[in-house]
Amino acid sequence: MHDSIESSTPLTPGHCHRARRLAGAGLAACLLLFSTTTAAWDGRAEKQVFEMEEYTTVGGETIAPVRIGWEAYGELNEAKDNVILITHFFSGTSHAAGRYAEDDAAPGYWDAIIGPGKPLDTDEYYVIASDTLVNLNAHDPNVTTTGPATTNPETGAPWGTDFPLVTIRDFVEVQKALLESQGIERLHAVMGASMGALQAYEWASAYPDQVERLIPVIGGGETDPWLLATLSAWAAPIRLDPNWNEGDYYAGEPPLDGLRESLKLVTLDANHWQWANATFDRSWADEDADPTRELEARYAIEQTLDDIAASRAELADANHLLYLVKANQAFITGHGESLAEGLARIEAPTLILYSEDDLVFAPPGIRRTAELIEADGTEVELVALEGNRGHLDGVVAIDQADDRIRAFLAE
Amino acid sequence: MHDSIESSTPLTPGHCHRARRLAGAGLAACLLLFSTTTAAWDGRAEKQVFEMEEYTTVGGETIAPVRIGWEAYGELNEAKDNVILITHFFSGTSHAAGRYAEDDAAPGYWDAIIGPGKPLDTDEYYVIASDTLVNLNAHDPNVTTTGPATTNPETGAPWGTDFPLVTIRDFVEVQKALLESQGIERLHAVMGASMGALQAYEWASAYPDQVERLIPVIGGGETDPWLLATLSAWAAPIRLDPNWNEGDYYAGEPPLDGLRESLKLVTLDANHWQWANATFDRSWADEDADPTRELEARYAIEQTLDDIAASRAELADANHLLYLVKANQAFITGHGESLAEGLARIEAPTLILYSEDDLVFAPPGIRRTAELIEADGTEVELVALEGNRGHLDGVVAIDQADDRIRAFLAE
Repeated sequence: MHDSIESSTPLTPGHCHRARRLAGAGLAACLLLFSTTTAAWDGRAEKQVFEMEEYTTVGGETIAPVRIGWEAYGELNEAKDNVILITHFFSGTSHAAGRYAEDDAAPGYWDAIIGPGKPLDTDEYYVIASDTLVNLNAHDPNVTTTGPATTNPETGAPWGTDFPLVTIRDFVEVQKALLESQGIERLHAVMGASMGALQAYEWASAYPDQVERLIPVIGGGETDPWLLATLSAWAAPIRLDPNWNEGDYYAGEPPLDGLRESLKLVTLDANHWQWANATFDRSWADEDADPTRELEARYAIEQTLDDIAASRAELADANHLLYLVKANQAFITGHGESLAEGLARIEAPTLILYSEDDLVFAPPGIRRTAELIEADGTEVELVALEGNRGHLDGVVAIDQADDRIRAFLAE
Repeated sequence: MHDSIESSTPLTPGHCHRARRLAGAGLAACLLLFSTTTAAWDGRAEKQVFEMEEYTTVGGETIAPVRIGWEAYGELNEAKDNVILITHFFSGTSHAAGRYAEDDAAPGYWDAIIGPGKPLDTDEYYVIASDTLVNLNAHDPNVTTTGPATTNPETGAPWGTDFPLVTIRDFVEVQKALLESQGIERLHAVMGASMGALQAYEWASAYPDQVERLIPVIGGGETDPWLLATLSAWAAPIRLDPNWNEGDYYAGEPPLDGLRESLKLVTLDANHWQWANATFDRSWADEDADPTRELEARYAIEQTLDDIAASRAELADANHLLYLVKANQAFITGHGESLAEGLARIEAPTLILYSEDDLVFAPPGIRRTAELIEADGTEVELVALEGNRGHLDGVVAIDQADDRIRAFLAE
């Protein structure tokens, strides 16, 4: 019975009703059916592109056109009220779940919590994610973004540093236009990690009537001085690379050496000594090259971090990294003078996931964010993530919050 | 009576004996006298230079000559058994206490604990400190060191990267030669912070019969993988600077841009977010240059870190920084395969001062070091320092351990 129902496609509640009439065991089969429906998202991600003829930044500058990539998992319901927006982190993309092809090495970064029967249940929700403006991975074929590396149709050459500085609020505005193009006017929830958390706070503060639930992960309501300095350190290696040439390198060699070092710092800072010391030892990168005897010989951990950075640098753009640094540095919820005012505008019940070992967003700033949202009676729950990855536990170990996320989305 | 004795100089125990014979109140006056003796160190530091005609590194390479600076506070007693050796940190020098001139902006880095009546009481101890080989501050007129920036008499040009790689053990061997030149064969104590702690462990492990007390501050028995990677990140900006030229820059422009960025990372990593967020806010460096509107405009914390780095870079040498990175990376107490064996050789009672918020030497590595020294019955006490500076609390907030250090030195 179960098999025969599963094989009849497309399945609708009408099918189930009919099945119930046909067989005594029908109801149970139908319940089973609609938790493992064949209309269920099959785990295949497909990148699509949204285009705006022009977009004027919060700073008053015009970018024409703006194109950004997006992907979605699950089905938008008729009422268009089952939408969860996922906003990505600094080095991330819209690839939050699923695989583009069966043999992809890894699925999207939050695949552990997005899918049929998972906390962000694609049988229930329409989960959508988009690439930000100035996305780091400008040369990833699965990313579409608009930034300094994009050709400016007016000149026929890449924008370079003529591209206007953009902010987290600009990322939100472009996402809003994308959602509106699909007729979506409210979000069941917005959820993002790190820079994605900043976008989530900004969404809930800028559009409190359109955000029903807020799930910021490993991010606070503003960029604190420590993070201002950390971001500055991430930018520095690019500026030291002579190929950077004040951002004008698109006709020549890109500043790949600098970009690699920048990405190495990002990897290191987003992790924690617990991870480094649990994962590596004092082994050499090459057993024939003793790092204590040769200036150029290295330890295994150095080589691994260099290899990760080199692989990421191939898809990334150095100016985009600098623009992301500026956007993150500029962030204070509401983009006004006062963090308290920006956070007071948030009305959505809020579930904040964070790590006590986060070396990027220091825990006191996250606790202060929770207090300020809660100050006028908005519900806030603060849940600490465990793990040895520090900041990155919000990306790689998110599944530990499965039950809490599932319940929060259902509340 | 007291006044008249103080004014009689020079004072020796003979004077005191005479005073006791001359007056009934003599004994009390003499005790007072010898705790505030006019022979007390006056807080004036004077740099001296120690030279070895040649020195063969642990790696078997010869450096000729080796010259290093040193300074001492207090008097070496006749038995030559009142010596405390201070070993300096990565960016430090032998200037541990006192002032070279009355109008020096600041005294030596541990002046809070070194001086008459202080825990390292110069009325009692002869406190001596020396510049290491490849000292970072090669161009500081108060530093004498031998390293890549030093002229090699054989060629008449700076050594550059022909200078042999040196290790913490080499620093110890040169210090040992310095002490022997003064007839010193044992140390009442050896004490150092960070890289200075590494030298202290190595002293106690290599020469257990000559070290009576060990006080490592903010440092562990080996460089863990996290620190291997952190040190690698410190080296990277110099290598990105085209002026570095594979270390061959002494005839041209030094890689100052890279050196500044390296020193900025050192400052940031040696601190903690508690310090950054307590000391700075989101202010701009220049109130007319909005960092959210201009790619080149910065926040105050960025400017401050840049200014500190620029000022330190003027006195530093880029190759020396790279050599220090290698020496620190190479460190494992005893320089053998096994940390346990290296630490087991330590016989000196040990007082370890550390910070739970240290982002350079992770606390578990320090606790493990304590356990391994203690494993064969050697006395170890572990004392946590408080403060908001992380690693740097071992330098700037050492005075909180006054009583413990004083008692340990007297035990």
